Amino acid sequence: MTYALGIDLGGTAIKVAVVREDGAMLRSARALTHAERGPEAVLDVMEELARRVVAEAAGASDQSLAGGIKKFAGLAELAGVGIGSPGPLSARRGVIHRMANLPSWDGFPLAARLRERLGLPVTLENDANVAALAEHWAGAGQGVDHLVMFTLGTGVGGGMIVDGRLITGHFENAGELGHMIVIPDGRPCGCGQRGCLETYASASAVAKQAEEAIEAGAASTLSQVRDGTGRVTSEDVAKAVEQGDALADRVWEGACRALATACINLTHTLNPELILFGGGLAKAGEMLLGRVRASMREQYWKLLDDLPRVEPARLGYEAGVIGAAGIVLRKF
Amino acid sequence: MTYALGIDLGGTAIKVAVVREDGAMLRSARALTHAERGPEAVLDVMEELARRVVAEAAGASDQSLAGGIKKFAGLAELAGVGIGSPGPLSARRGVIHRMANLPSWDGFPLAARLRERLGLPVTLENDANVAALAEHWAGAGQGVDHLVMFTLGTGVGGGMIVDGRLITGHFENAGELGHMIVIPDGRPCGCGQRGCLETYASASAVAKQAEEAIEAGAASTLSQVRDGTGRVTSEDVAKAVEQGDALADRVWEGACRALATACINLTHTLNPELILFGGGLAKAGEMLLGRVRASMREQYWKLLDDLPRVEPARLGYEAGVIGAAGIVLRKF
Repeated sequence: MTYALGIDLGGTAIKVAVVREDGAMLRSARALTHAERGPEAVLDVMEELARRVVAEAAGASDQSLAGGIKKFAGLAELAGVGIGSPGPLSARRGVIHRMANLPSWDGFPLAARLRERLGLPVTLENDANVAALAEHWAGAGQGVDHLVMFTLGTGVGGGMIVDGRLITGHFENAGELGHMIVIPDGRPCGCGQRGCLETYASASAVAKQAEEAIEAGAASTLSQVRDGTGRVTSEDVAKAVEQGDALADRVWEGACRALATACINLTHTLNPELILFGGGLAKAGEMLLGRVRASMREQYWKLLDDLPRVEPARLGYEAGVIGAAGIVLRKF
Repeated sequence: MTYALGIDLGGTAIKVAVVREDGAMLRSARALTHAERGPEAVLDVMEELARRVVAEAAGASDQSLAGGIKKFAGLAELAGVGIGSPGPLSARRGVIHRMANLPSWDGFPLAARLRERLGLPVTLENDANVAALAEHWAGAGQGVDHLVMFTLGTGVGGGMIVDGRLITGHFENAGELGHMIVIPDGRPCGCGQRGCLETYASASAVAKQAEEAIEAGAASTLSQVRDGTGRVTSEDVAKAVEQGDALADRVWEGACRALATACINLTHTLNPELILFGGGLAKAGEMLLGRVRASMREQYWKLLDDLPRVEPARLGYEAGVIGAAGIVLRKF
């Protein structure tokens, strides 16, 4: 049995897990990221979590892992460490290009530095790519060689598996699905473009569009929610849709239609068998996926019958650590 | 030296060529397709052209090819035959799904039948994929492992090379770039969708949009062209753009902007190094490509600097036969 460490470096929390070559998670631990303290402080946290989970796994599990642990100071048995991190980054060079507008991270050689500390090979990859890889390896996309995964959170992330391999592209920025333009001259995006998928269909965008409509004077049960808490969340919008609120429904339908347009365009380009949705907004389940499917059928051409299946991702918050370990273990 | 036969099965003409493993074309021949006479009649033409070019190449070229020829009746030395054909089709099964609304072609096992006649392995592939492969192998995309090619003709075809391999997708319909939706609820397309790239940026669509504007009463030098010949071609529109005609310019700009939106979306998904344009409309050269580049820079985000190069394809009408032979030869 081979093992790897998977690290999910998120804006809020760092998660570290020991993962077995069959995708099973043995031990995991988490701590707050505090990216604003700079990369070396974050490395301290990563190293501490890594040493802790390996020690715990060694105590709890079989002899081969214990052997790996014994060598953990002097190094050999663990196959390596995978890190999933928000982009932009260079997987090839193991370098973070940018992190949440914190200049101390710009160009930081995260993979090399963690390797120095742990004495293990370290691979860095975009977190949305990692999530796609996790679902392909051990989640809802097992056995599916052509698969696209959307992560609908603060932004819209994407990862694409083609012929069983992760696509990263020439400049290593493939899969930025949230910045596909779905409505030319549409809503302005933080990236500088207009009409990005992310401005309609991220969890934040759904909340923001509802707030804007309320501010513009639209009647909605959401105005009371907003008066109570000061803001509207995507969960509030989803709840209001269920209760038949017209404004919430309009925003929700717009998000589903934007996602459907993006899915159709991916069908014409990559022609996948399966499209998966994960992240906060996808927790709405069929209320999201059912509408995306319906809008795809409505917009799609009639000549070919090759619409992909549209399904929920399965691994949830564990996708990050499992996929990160998978980057390392899948090399075997 | 290894050789292969490349066959370009077009709506109007069939072209057959003997191609060397370095991409050089030795001999070629062509005849009218007459697809309406049915697949067996077209096979007769293919077989005759194939035997003729191999015989000619044997007379004109080196001994190894002559050796191949000698065995051509009993068959062994030529590596095989590649056919590029309009889709939809199944490369995996060597079957044409549909051909220009001619029912006698539906489901025709073209590869197997030609194999029976020639006694050589036969591979079938979508013509737009073949053109992309040709440019990657022996044209403007040599050495480029991440490349997208658009063919702007009657429709808009596409082919995509990722990590040096042609992408065909789960249902074998990858690369239908002409049916990416670039303007939701936009112009109706023959396929049943609305706002397809093809309805703005194919050679036919450019001509059609100009004609519609004239019919609607717009002033343009193109009305005289139309009065003279009964119709407007995309070449007429291109000429009128050069001469400063406002209507022609508006249509042309719309085509370039639609192409730019599609290119940006492909940049965010596949992240290619190079995007190539071939086909009739691309003959306009910089008047097309320069405007596509400008519109891409205008629409694209500012965070990343990874716009692909946008260049003309190089092989022109020979791309079909060279790429078709390449499918066979690239296996070696």
